[in-house]
Amino acid sequence: MKEKVLRALRDEDDYVSGQALCEKLGVSRTAVWKAIQSLREDGYVIEAVPNKGYRITGCPDTIAAEEVASRLRTKWMGKKLYYFSTIDSTNQYAKKLGEEQAPDGTIVIADEQTAGKGRSGRHWVTPPKSAIAFTILVRPKLPPSRISMVTLVKGLAVCNAIRQLYSLPAGIKWPNDVVIHGRKICGILTEMSAEVDGVHYVVIGTGINANLTSFPEEIRKIATSLELELGHPVDRAQVLCRVIELFEQYYDLFEKRGDLTDLQEMYNKELLNLNQKVRVLDPKGAYTGTALGIDPEGELLVKRDDDGKTVKVWSGEVSVRGIYGYV
Amino acid sequence: MKEKVLRALRDEDDYVSGQALCEKLGVSRTAVWKAIQSLREDGYVIEAVPNKGYRITGCPDTIAAEEVASRLRTKWMGKKLYYFSTIDSTNQYAKKLGEEQAPDGTIVIADEQTAGKGRSGRHWVTPPKSAIAFTILVRPKLPPSRISMVTLVKGLAVCNAIRQLYSLPAGIKWPNDVVIHGRKICGILTEMSAEVDGVHYVVIGTGINANLTSFPEEIRKIATSLELELGHPVDRAQVLCRVIELFEQYYDLFEKRGDLTDLQEMYNKELLNLNQKVRVLDPKGAYTGTALGIDPEGELLVKRDDDGKTVKVWSGEVSVRGIYGYV
Repeated sequence: MKEKVLRALRDEDDYVSGQALCEKLGVSRTAVWKAIQSLREDGYVIEAVPNKGYRITGCPDTIAAEEVASRLRTKWMGKKLYYFSTIDSTNQYAKKLGEEQAPDGTIVIADEQTAGKGRSGRHWVTPPKSAIAFTILVRPKLPPSRISMVTLVKGLAVCNAIRQLYSLPAGIKWPNDVVIHGRKICGILTEMSAEVDGVHYVVIGTGINANLTSFPEEIRKIATSLELELGHPVDRAQVLCRVIELFEQYYDLFEKRGDLTDLQEMYNKELLNLNQKVRVLDPKGAYTGTALGIDPEGELLVKRDDDGKTVKVWSGEVSVRGIYGYV
Repeated sequence: MKEKVLRALRDEDDYVSGQALCEKLGVSRTAVWKAIQSLREDGYVIEAVPNKGYRITGCPDTIAAEEVASRLRTKWMGKKLYYFSTIDSTNQYAKKLGEEQAPDGTIVIADEQTAGKGRSGRHWVTPPKSAIAFTILVRPKLPPSRISMVTLVKGLAVCNAIRQLYSLPAGIKWPNDVVIHGRKICGILTEMSAEVDGVHYVVIGTGINANLTSFPEEIRKIATSLELELGHPVDRAQVLCRVIELFEQYYDLFEKRGDLTDLQEMYNKELLNLNQKVRVLDPKGAYTGTALGIDPEGELLVKRDDDGKTVKVWSGEVSVRGIYGYV
């Protein structure tokens, strides 16, 4: 109910009368009034002018489900939203939902993670009320071998959302790190449950350093935040909604083809490694070369220095070090 | 305790005195006597001869943990065993154990599955006391793209266990169906939880039609059992132990290399499709050809009829129909 009222008020630039709200939502004036009161308690500033109606003039800094749901413009993603003020890990919860047949596109959002995970079991810091932590659950009709590409799709969505909203020079360090001025602004952890023939579900966890102003010692030199880059805090729900909207759009292109053919050009445009020297840490022996961009499978094409051959580099087996601020 | 007594009795061909058992296991005579009584209640026939000691002369048809543990000769696999007289699905339980950090090589055994799963969500029949249903949990240090090969490793272990124990003409229909006289004797379902860089855990569920004597109408023509093929029931624990022992041996070879290089020749020897006509149901268009065996990645090499080219066929994307008893 709160979400519906919020959405109805947001749909209009002008005042919305109580009567109009009742009719639009098919509920009583008392129900509308209760929802308005409850929103006010959550921190929304809602003007009420006699003979005109209600209007939102201020909203709290929140990424709670009703705020996100009332602003999200997607076709199918995020129709089911879970929000937690604090949780161990949004990926962990989303995996539980995956086992329980939660629908494609379900999203888990948290204001704080007490045991947020980065890749390979590393810790990911999500302090309360300043970061954006969320996980999208999808059920692609693709074989497991194609799932690693989802991570690149997600990185691209975060990168472009930041560019569109704030004109910041965000770029991608292959495969999926989003970097501004040489520092990392976002972490993505993709996990899947699969059998040989197909995927049960994929969870894509994303942590975006939104309004963080300090970092633990060990990552201080390699991390940044939107607030640090802009000099002011951002509207976290706006960032979250834009990322989800772009991800839905890109994911649809990816899932239809089963690869990145339709996203390759866009991705390579944002790729910081493009035409740059990279060092490939292949377990069979490290080498250097020039990054030529990704192919439709998301592999990085590298022209090797020693023999001039172009080789395909795959993230599951090697790591690539660039020349950016962090390694 | 029961398992230790059982193992101590089995280690000797002759009688074992109560005194010797006490010393070997470091427990009191009362403890030994209690374990013997409990084993008798489980259906073990244990002779007790004055001045000689105890000897096993009969054992129940069981695949319970103590029976399997006392007979299993492995280096690391199955050191942790779970047994259920009835369970929904051994894979489901093993996945739960996987999330809970159960050790590499943990095995879940069940006498009956009420919701056993086959590939792609199909139902798998596990009637009580006649089938062998078990799941092995492993934690390979390999990228997710290599995990599908585990299924072939498991198929090979089942096939060779049956050949070694009963000299039955078991063979493999690529990728992992074990077939005797054109009928399927075993089903394997491999599931994994992974991220892009690595695998959290893999569970390999196996259902072997051991002492089943009838099948539901819909699979009657394509399924068989060891009892039907041999004309007498088999010792299920013996089959189970041999399969686990061979799987451990083959899995070690697979994990060390990260592919099937060391198993390719052995696999192709048992491959029923070898040099046979196959029909490849590629979503991009079906075609026929001759199967030439697997490559080190477990892909089936098929010499296409129309252009004579050899193509690699991968099980996640296509299915192969042979000329065997079942399709």
